[in-house]
Amino acid sequence: MGFWKTWFSTSESAATNRTAPFEEMSAEFTGNNPNSDRIVFSTERDIDLYELEELCDAVGWSRRPLRKVKKAIEHSFLVASMWQVRGNQRRLIGFARATSDHAFNATIWDVVVHPDFQGKGMGKALMKYVLKKLRSEEISNVTLFADPHVVDFYRTMGFMPDPEGIKGMFWYPH
Amino acid sequence: MGFWKTWFSTSESAATNRTAPFEEMSAEFTGNNPNSDRIVFSTERDIDLYELEELCDAVGWSRRPLRKVKKAIEHSFLVASMWQVRGNQRRLIGFARATSDHAFNATIWDVVVHPDFQGKGMGKALMKYVLKKLRSEEISNVTLFADPHVVDFYRTMGFMPDPEGIKGMFWYPH
Repeated sequence: MGFWKTWFSTSESAATNRTAPFEEMSAEFTGNNPNSDRIVFSTERDIDLYELEELCDAVGWSRRPLRKVKKAIEHSFLVASMWQVRGNQRRLIGFARATSDHAFNATIWDVVVHPDFQGKGMGKALMKYVLKKLRSEEISNVTLFADPHVVDFYRTMGFMPDPEGIKGMFWYPH
Repeated sequence: MGFWKTWFSTSESAATNRTAPFEEMSAEFTGNNPNSDRIVFSTERDIDLYELEELCDAVGWSRRPLRKVKKAIEHSFLVASMWQVRGNQRRLIGFARATSDHAFNATIWDVVVHPDFQGKGMGKALMKYVLKKLRSEEISNVTLFADPHVVDFYRTMGFMPDPEGIKGMFWYPH
């Protein structure tokens, strides 16, 4: 995929020079950005919950108790974050996590990209990173529940709605 | 729900007399059964994998490596099993498990009821047990992916397909 080659320079040397856990995948984000900020990805779970809340606020999500967010992060199989790095500073610009049985299924939740970075391929980059991580763990079945306005986005990432008539269902107490 | 009252006698005294972990919910299965076998439910994870495989064989599922099944059971948030108890013998007749972040979401997988016990309310009983367990853990969002022929079954249990247009999606590498 030439597009990704243009946007991402995942050079091994750059990766080895960076300190863990930000070594795993990197991207030179040169698209619309004159400063050539680095975009880095991480699976580190030690995320500042207030910074995460700020990110979720920016996309208009309802606030959730931080105690529960903390617990959810602890018990997620994968926690993926995307950062803009400029000099010594880094800013959380994307987040996603997945629950899993560590064997067959993983389900992706809470995919969020800061509005300043939407429409620039950053959501795709984050999802690509998440899928790469899940594949490396030999998870065969990756699922998610997509809001109507992002169904087409996930379709371009290789997700199929209702394959073979399988229906995503939500339980509501009655 | 009068129906359940008829089928289930979840008496406290019966529960306290039974040894853990089969103490939690019980059912007198007297419907079409002259022997009044007891049906009991459990969250015990120490399930004989060959017995589980036999159950899955009975409904025609593809076999899966037991090593992975073991791992999936270990890393599921909830493992629920349903047993027919006759005298000193017990037989695995139903199974379900759920992955979860322990905070917001749970997703139910691998719901199976032995064909001999289908059409007798046993699937409903198993799901009722699973939902009760998940609710007791304060999980607010319970989801699943339903094959076309069981969508109506889950609907009667309170599950909604595609609520507000939310689409269940599966990833296929391309």
